[in-house]
Amino acid sequence: MTGEPRLGDVFGEVVRDALAVATGSGPRPLAGGRLPRPVIEIIERDDGLVNGAPADHYLAGPADWQPYDRRAVDRVRGETLDIGVGAGRIALELQERGVPVTGLDVSPGALAVCRRRGVRNLVCQTVDEHPAHGRRYDTFLLLGNNLGLVEGRDRAPVFLAALAAMARPGAQVIAQGTDPYGTTDPVQTAYHERNRRRGRLGGQLRLRLRYRELGTPWFDYLVCTPDELGGLVAGTPWQLVDVDDHDAPYYLATLRLRD
Amino acid sequence: MTGEPRLGDVFGEVVRDALAVATGSGPRPLAGGRLPRPVIEIIERDDGLVNGAPADHYLAGPADWQPYDRRAVDRVRGETLDIGVGAGRIALELQERGVPVTGLDVSPGALAVCRRRGVRNLVCQTVDEHPAHGRRYDTFLLLGNNLGLVEGRDRAPVFLAALAAMARPGAQVIAQGTDPYGTTDPVQTAYHERNRRRGRLGGQLRLRLRYRELGTPWFDYLVCTPDELGGLVAGTPWQLVDVDDHDAPYYLATLRLRD
Repeated sequence: MTGEPRLGDVFGEVVRDALAVATGSGPRPLAGGRLPRPVIEIIERDDGLVNGAPADHYLAGPADWQPYDRRAVDRVRGETLDIGVGAGRIALELQERGVPVTGLDVSPGALAVCRRRGVRNLVCQTVDEHPAHGRRYDTFLLLGNNLGLVEGRDRAPVFLAALAAMARPGAQVIAQGTDPYGTTDPVQTAYHERNRRRGRLGGQLRLRLRYRELGTPWFDYLVCTPDELGGLVAGTPWQLVDVDDHDAPYYLATLRLRD
Repeated sequence: MTGEPRLGDVFGEVVRDALAVATGSGPRPLAGGRLPRPVIEIIERDDGLVNGAPADHYLAGPADWQPYDRRAVDRVRGETLDIGVGAGRIALELQERGVPVTGLDVSPGALAVCRRRGVRNLVCQTVDEHPAHGRRYDTFLLLGNNLGLVEGRDRAPVFLAALAAMARPGAQVIAQGTDPYGTTDPVQTAYHERNRRRGRLGGQLRLRLRYRELGTPWFDYLVCTPDELGGLVAGTPWQLVDVDDHDAPYYLATLRLRD
């Protein structure tokens, strides 16, 4: 026995259990059968680094958000696609504001949580599959570090082309990222250096998620600077028109569809 | 690259960082360089199960303890050895009460935290090494589930003999355990069954701890019923004289040195 997890809908189980703990309703993880435990998402990196992150922030309302999330929502206009809708925190606030929003996620469990929390328009697809669905959008949201979904140099143009294929004229992407390089932690700087030696962007993380007996396959997730993002956007149907870095190292990047 | 951790003092780093977060003093883990993160200890089991547990309970004062911990401390008398002293929460309370207590741990980092928090008598040894140190005890404490340190059928008599070798006449062991079998979770029942097929006790966990880039070797940690404990104690210099299971499935077992 190797300690390897079973493949499954890790994120879906995390937010399902986080909702059960938050509402006190439904089966929820217990220590030894009685004491409630907080739901912790485990993030493993391919250099052996592991982090546990409490999952309750996926359910947080606007009052508990970071300020850049509130500013992101203020930038939304028109028909909106919330990419990686998660437990629906952003989509619920947009519905509240009367914005027509669709939540996209590949996690069936996450979509079930969104539905129970009241998100109305939900689609279980990748961004590559979704253009065939026929809906067209004015705003694409990549919040909660979901700029990471562009993965790296190979994937970014494909990902951004998929968004362009379902974009209305003048459409925008609002993406939240983090500058990964403001650290002197040798575990981090060595990882960035190793990535560069292998022709990857420094903050091109190789991760898998784990929760209880389940794990995801390994996947790339990009943490990059606004400058690196500018390089990835060059030559795509999008241009980087604004960077809000008032909460550096966190930032909001706005891309606009070229005419 | 395999995602394997580097061997190191996982527990020591966990409690050092937990103390830094609690006191706001010293380097502490940050997300992306700015937002503080809670310290989460990662516990991996050899069937692929993983759990994240917030580490702040290691620093908790008596008001935040589970009731069985308070009852355990009330049972202490005489010269006391706190086995697996951790961040010193029990030892500090005993010192407060005027009990002569020594904290034993194999984690240098944990002992450094104990020292900073004011625990006076500390020894960095295993229970096998400590008899040569010369101190003799009236009470041995195995709290915080540290009954698990008896590991299983092979290790239990050796472990209990080591305690007997440093026991004064009439000495007691106060051990906190958990009955693992009050669950219908198939992940747990399958694990118990597999253990039994391999000749192990059902709740004989094979674990490793992880924190950031560090991991421990795999080790056995026993979760057993009072009846199973009784079986392990038979034929040793100890007898099981009392089980307090007012907070079942958690319990306090008291062993007494045979005359």
